[in-house]
Amino acid sequence: MTMAGNQVKGFSFATAAAGIKQTQRPDCALIFSDIPAACAGVFTRNQVVAAPLQLTRPRVLQGKCQAVLVNSGNANACTGAAGLEAARQNGRTLAAELGIAEELIALASTGVIGVQLPGARLDAVVPHLVKERSADKAAAVAEAIMTTDMFSKTSVARLQTPGQSATILGIAKGAGMIHPNMATMLGFVLTDANIGAQLLQSCLQIAVEQSFNSITVDGDTSTNDMVLLLANGQAGEGEILPQTPAAEDFQLQLNTVLLELAKMIVRDGEGATKLVQIHVRGARSTAEAKEAARSVATSSLVKTAFFGEDANWGRIIAALGYSNAEVDAQRVDIFFDQVQVVSAGLGTGPEQELLATEVLRRKEFRVTLDLHLGAGSSDYYTSDLTYEYIKINADYRT
Amino acid sequence: MTMAGNQVKGFSFATAAAGIKQTQRPDCALIFSDIPAACAGVFTRNQVVAAPLQLTRPRVLQGKCQAVLVNSGNANACTGAAGLEAARQNGRTLAAELGIAEELIALASTGVIGVQLPGARLDAVVPHLVKERSADKAAAVAEAIMTTDMFSKTSVARLQTPGQSATILGIAKGAGMIHPNMATMLGFVLTDANIGAQLLQSCLQIAVEQSFNSITVDGDTSTNDMVLLLANGQAGEGEILPQTPAAEDFQLQLNTVLLELAKMIVRDGEGATKLVQIHVRGARSTAEAKEAARSVATSSLVKTAFFGEDANWGRIIAALGYSNAEVDAQRVDIFFDQVQVVSAGLGTGPEQELLATEVLRRKEFRVTLDLHLGAGSSDYYTSDLTYEYIKINADYRT
Repeated sequence: MTMAGNQVKGFSFATAAAGIKQTQRPDCALIFSDIPAACAGVFTRNQVVAAPLQLTRPRVLQGKCQAVLVNSGNANACTGAAGLEAARQNGRTLAAELGIAEELIALASTGVIGVQLPGARLDAVVPHLVKERSADKAAAVAEAIMTTDMFSKTSVARLQTPGQSATILGIAKGAGMIHPNMATMLGFVLTDANIGAQLLQSCLQIAVEQSFNSITVDGDTSTNDMVLLLANGQAGEGEILPQTPAAEDFQLQLNTVLLELAKMIVRDGEGATKLVQIHVRGARSTAEAKEAARSVATSSLVKTAFFGEDANWGRIIAALGYSNAEVDAQRVDIFFDQVQVVSAGLGTGPEQELLATEVLRRKEFRVTLDLHLGAGSSDYYTSDLTYEYIKINADYRT
Repeated sequence: MTMAGNQVKGFSFATAAAGIKQTQRPDCALIFSDIPAACAGVFTRNQVVAAPLQLTRPRVLQGKCQAVLVNSGNANACTGAAGLEAARQNGRTLAAELGIAEELIALASTGVIGVQLPGARLDAVVPHLVKERSADKAAAVAEAIMTTDMFSKTSVARLQTPGQSATILGIAKGAGMIHPNMATMLGFVLTDANIGAQLLQSCLQIAVEQSFNSITVDGDTSTNDMVLLLANGQAGEGEILPQTPAAEDFQLQLNTVLLELAKMIVRDGEGATKLVQIHVRGARSTAEAKEAARSVATSSLVKTAFFGEDANWGRIIAALGYSNAEVDAQRVDIFFDQVQVVSAGLGTGPEQELLATEVLRRKEFRVTLDLHLGAGSSDYYTSDLTYEYIKINADYRT
């Protein structure tokens, strides 16, 4: 999505090449709000938490944030006290340069684990970042935070409520280690809507659950995942209050922005050639629907069959069967887009499979699994598992 | 392991080419005990259960079995009432030909899911199987049950207790969909020891937990997994009773046979080039140790790094961190064989990593993870994730 005309009032951006990556490409970025913004955050559930997250999580819980400093090329995870101090110092340097409180700064890192962050290099470019920031550089931020990403990821929506003209802008990265809670993914969502930190947090959790927590590339949950949502109210409208049409609209648009980013991440999954939506319905509950969808979406055999464009529904039923959701094989229906390949647990024959193979040739398609046990439904987005995935990950550090 | 001189008294074997596989290679086998044997079984925990297992499970629970009929090339799973009737008819045909009760026959299948088993072809070769059986054809059975296996798998041990000369012979197959509970794996373990069904079941469960339930190739649990253990007492010695040295010895030898088969399955994992033991110690409990080991052993990123011979311990710590076991990153030690790459959560430096890379070049090595939180330890065996895995599974049906 183009960024032209998609500025968010009161936010500015800058990038720099600090030399954290081997290349001379930009590898750090600043996001700045003219005033302290209300903020919300969702963080990795991995027990091993990178240094910048250790600092940022308690700050975000205070509900205020004015600047985000992010680097790619080094995760600053498993780096001990030295890594924590490096992140803290980066924050201090930026706070001093901006003339704001250290607690208003969020820090994020992505890249290789277990290597000390060259924090001094990051400190050295902070003056440049602060000086060069401008309202139209959000796309450059999306570029600077890429690691194995093949393309940068931004998404924009505008509130539709009468009297609201606020914008929601999402910036994300993440191509490998993509799996809930959450993915090696960073997401920065900025809005000029006027909305309090508490409502913001609730909206973010709902939107993340349906987007970043419903995607998988390789089943690995990273130490660095973080989604931040900043609202600075600079669009100039009245506060969006809970349980109003404006709040519903905000939730809807936020869901759209995050789901669009999440799908981009899967589409850009390491080595991925296909984006597949696993839609489960008829489960006993929403939670079981999500478990069933997750089990199918993360099966290496299913993902490899997608790559092979093989309508191998047996592997799908097997993955349903070992999920934590209740499944009765004799009730299961399976569709590839509109083509039904399984009816009540039995194959519908070679003609249907041939039609399904046509569906599998598509770059994007949907697999619908109807369990016929209840009203629960959920979606999961996954990629195929390819030679290229192996290549990227066998060679990542060497 | 050679089969020469490794016959088990009172057992005979036969194989045939029934035309279930496209090739003219043997694709079915008979295992027969001269007398009804005490028996035990462990079956897939997948909710979707193949037809032969639906028939065999209740029979095995009765504690007696005299013959096993197994086919490769078709799993007879997701085949509905017709599949169940085909399996039942195969059993009837064999029972009539052998002149034994239908309930004494176990049935097993492995191969593609969702395609009707051509049961009549299997029926047609039953007279041949019964007629041609002989004591020295166990190796042929191991060959006939292969699917994507690259080599056949047998293992033999002899009881060491004074006064016991009984043999334990294990035959297994399984190369893909290998994951606990249990794997697309079939295991048939035969002994001429004199041991009751109840003790047999307890011994089998212990041995399976440490072997077939501690391996992974691709994280997929099949619909057809089954391990059967038959004891016909034909070695002629006294009954092995619970909590005796003979029972302990039986357990030990059974563990050895099953672990050897399990490691062969990982070594033969689809596309695998390495066998890696993930040894976790210092966990809060054995159960947590196994969870931690499982999490590392099933991580696609870790397995791909093994293939790339990259001592990427960051991915290992990340996988520990999202496991269900309690982990404190700052206490974790990691070794590749004898080479320590992480001490108290921090990398030990480039020299050690270089040495670790040497370890990773080996065909087989061990990764030791010390959590320093308790006394729990456990092992998991895994393979690397390779281009060949993708190739095999993208093309399996086409």
